[in-house]
Amino acid sequence: MEDRIKNLDYLFHPRSIAFVGATEAIGKWGLIIFNNLISGGYEGKLYPVNPGRASVLGFQAYPSVRDIPNEVDLAVFTVPARQVVATMDDCLARGVKAGVVISAGFKEMGGEYIALEAELLAKARGGGMLLVGPNSQGICCPRHKLYSWMPFFFPPPGNIGVVSQSGNIQNILISGVVNSGFGVAKAVSSGNEVDLRKDDYFEYYAHDPTIEVILSYLEGITDGRRFIERIRAVTKEKPVIILQGGRTQSGVAAATSHTGALAVSDQLFKSVCKQSGITQVWSVDEAGIIATSFLNRPLPRGRRVGIVTGGGGLGVIAADVCTDLGLEVARLSPETLNRISKLMPNWWVPGNPVDLVAGLRFDTISPIIEILMKSGEIDSVMFIFIGPPDIEGTRTPRSDKGIDLGKMWDVMSKQFGNYADALFDLMHGLKIPLYPVTNHKFDENIQDRNRHLVIYSTIDSACRAIGAMVRYHEYREGIKQDNDAIG
Amino acid sequence: MEDRIKNLDYLFHPRSIAFVGATEAIGKWGLIIFNNLISGGYEGKLYPVNPGRASVLGFQAYPSVRDIPNEVDLAVFTVPARQVVATMDDCLARGVKAGVVISAGFKEMGGEYIALEAELLAKARGGGMLLVGPNSQGICCPRHKLYSWMPFFFPPPGNIGVVSQSGNIQNILISGVVNSGFGVAKAVSSGNEVDLRKDDYFEYYAHDPTIEVILSYLEGITDGRRFIERIRAVTKEKPVIILQGGRTQSGVAAATSHTGALAVSDQLFKSVCKQSGITQVWSVDEAGIIATSFLNRPLPRGRRVGIVTGGGGLGVIAADVCTDLGLEVARLSPETLNRISKLMPNWWVPGNPVDLVAGLRFDTISPIIEILMKSGEIDSVMFIFIGPPDIEGTRTPRSDKGIDLGKMWDVMSKQFGNYADALFDLMHGLKIPLYPVTNHKFDENIQDRNRHLVIYSTIDSACRAIGAMVRYHEYREGIKQDNDAIG
Repeated sequence: MEDRIKNLDYLFHPRSIAFVGATEAIGKWGLIIFNNLISGGYEGKLYPVNPGRASVLGFQAYPSVRDIPNEVDLAVFTVPARQVVATMDDCLARGVKAGVVISAGFKEMGGEYIALEAELLAKARGGGMLLVGPNSQGICCPRHKLYSWMPFFFPPPGNIGVVSQSGNIQNILISGVVNSGFGVAKAVSSGNEVDLRKDDYFEYYAHDPTIEVILSYLEGITDGRRFIERIRAVTKEKPVIILQGGRTQSGVAAATSHTGALAVSDQLFKSVCKQSGITQVWSVDEAGIIATSFLNRPLPRGRRVGIVTGGGGLGVIAADVCTDLGLEVARLSPETLNRISKLMPNWWVPGNPVDLVAGLRFDTISPIIEILMKSGEIDSVMFIFIGPPDIEGTRTPRSDKGIDLGKMWDVMSKQFGNYADALFDLMHGLKIPLYPVTNHKFDENIQDRNRHLVIYSTIDSACRAIGAMVRYHEYREGIKQDNDAIG
Repeated sequence: MEDRIKNLDYLFHPRSIAFVGATEAIGKWGLIIFNNLISGGYEGKLYPVNPGRASVLGFQAYPSVRDIPNEVDLAVFTVPARQVVATMDDCLARGVKAGVVISAGFKEMGGEYIALEAELLAKARGGGMLLVGPNSQGICCPRHKLYSWMPFFFPPPGNIGVVSQSGNIQNILISGVVNSGFGVAKAVSSGNEVDLRKDDYFEYYAHDPTIEVILSYLEGITDGRRFIERIRAVTKEKPVIILQGGRTQSGVAAATSHTGALAVSDQLFKSVCKQSGITQVWSVDEAGIIATSFLNRPLPRGRRVGIVTGGGGLGVIAADVCTDLGLEVARLSPETLNRISKLMPNWWVPGNPVDLVAGLRFDTISPIIEILMKSGEIDSVMFIFIGPPDIEGTRTPRSDKGIDLGKMWDVMSKQFGNYADALFDLMHGLKIPLYPVTNHKFDENIQDRNRHLVIYSTIDSACRAIGAMVRYHEYREGIKQDNDAIG
């Protein structure tokens, strides 16, 4: 790793931060972001820089960065674009190692502002100072209690590394991760990427032992050849999940006025992903769950899916979606079907999907999954079990004359959790990944985060997760992919 | 409407119900469904039929249907298949008008069971008794407090009519409706459809004034020509949203063992939908929100979308997805852009999507939407405004030294609701539909259900809703659709 990349440590673990534009004016980013740093519990030194104030939110303020009496690792900028450029000399004089430029009003405005951004870059590069942005939402590193960003949102630490050219989309990506029960290692909203580019962050994340999976939103690529070369080194180590914005003519136009990005076409980017082992995703709302699917779960070693379903129609849908994505609904041998048949009522129709035919016997589910996993006939198991929806008011009886069966469902749901640990061990022992689609409390009894598995709320997401993981396995093993549909 | 179809009234609004197989045995459908009838608050007469008991859950039991002393409109069956057939003579003797066969073990089992199902049909048709199922999850009609079905789930009354060949999928479809803030008029899980078929229910729903939109899951079509003819009469009156299961070879195999359905190919069904104005959907989880999109909202009169977004990246994604679906990201005139520009900070880059550039001024949103709606340059407005996610624990500051800005977001979110009523009136006055994608409390102040609009949590759903409604408008107006992608 080059020294330049290694210096990203100053970004995510700074010992001290100068905040240029810190203020107490309501509605200003200089208040919101400075306050988030404080509320987030940052433990290093904080130096607000504001010539008009003696202090900001209780911290002594300084007229300029030069006036700060101690070393400064990181500077954050919320002042107008021209002032950011004007402040750079002070930062370099003070030996600031890295800067996060929140301020907009650079390249994305076109015209003279392109030159202004070039000037900013020249100064930073001249003094060896790294720059995030401009037009960034900020960064976070929960392990170090660093939340130097816009949203009032403090995700827990975890193992996903995020890079997003859009702040709002970064929030949605991280929401997906947190809603899946996981946390974030580091996140950066890269904005216009005048200095640090997405491939720099990827390279840094590749070497970060706290990061297992990389999740990214991008609107364009600069220097495609170098990008591919670098990303290949990353995907050798860790899965990289990317959502591309600006795939269409209208999208490109929007991206240009958003981050001034050099968009790449849909087809070209698809081909880049295929060549370099990137897991491409198309839905901003599903990206987080696809990324966390890779955590605590082995890769499927092939395309054959076994489907165990608590509802016939759900099995039909799952079979359709698997087929759409180039996965195979495994053909089970008579021996395997016979083994399962012994656990089923006599009106069971043998086949895959294995329809549990409205059997309310939770105690057969785990043995059936075990039979499938040990059969040698499947590479992954999707397990679908969706009970009555738990929507406010709709589980309240309209009359008190009946029995409250809602409690029965809750008890069954709890019992269900008892199997989670055993299935987790089986999955890792046999290296056959399990994809539960359920609204039951599957992981009720799992307290250990290292045993936590993503539970899917939709069949579609689970199928796309299997597709994404199979494709990554095939890339890593050098298996030729003739089927474009997969994923 | 034929008398046969009119008799469906006995199904959804029976004055009395015989429950063949009612029991108190834990885990049996005869307990669960009979109990749901009671818990649901059904106000007609209930007659449990069970030769082994004097009463069930406090209701006097009868050894057979013949022994019931009064008129019986509807019979529900949970006894084994052969017993259902054996009981039919009693039902006919008692003059029962309609039956719901929950019991499985008919056509879907193949072999001799096909003949058993034929025998059931012959008896019912011979006596003029309508049959739902077999292999049905049951029916519901919330307006009449009739919940004669498996799930412990009591959705509120509303204006969506549901027909599903799968019970589990019916639950998910209805969950989507309820989660969108709406309710259900009537729902039927049609199962094997030995007698009543989906087109019978569609025809009945078409004449039902409480039903505005029809939502359906199907696994096959019997007598395609007649199906198309009948559905065309329905789509002339009301939108019909259909999810097809069994589109692929594996899906067809699964459907055959599920409901014994005669599946139709993906391509054939697509063409049926196009010819007959059906709104086809592909995601079981999105079907409900697409259906409720049609409620309380005018149809867009063209493909031109105006996008107002509180985040640049979200605008890029929306532009991409609209384009994917054959919608047009409208080109705004200099006059319109100029009008908007006056409400924007100086770093705004004029264009559509209209990026609110991280402006925290909620008071400009409503005027900007009004300018777009009155411009004559767009046919619908998508409005995207996603704040920091409200996930448990992540809005809790890590330190108490800062200001709790979470409250600021909540206050802003509330202010936001003030505009909902005005925008609703504008939408109906100008007949330009609005599609809000937001996690803010957009409809906080709307108490009147007739003014409730679906709020989308994802850009993708909102775009697909616009696509579906544009396509339906084009069908109704006889506008030729050359673009297959739309919807």
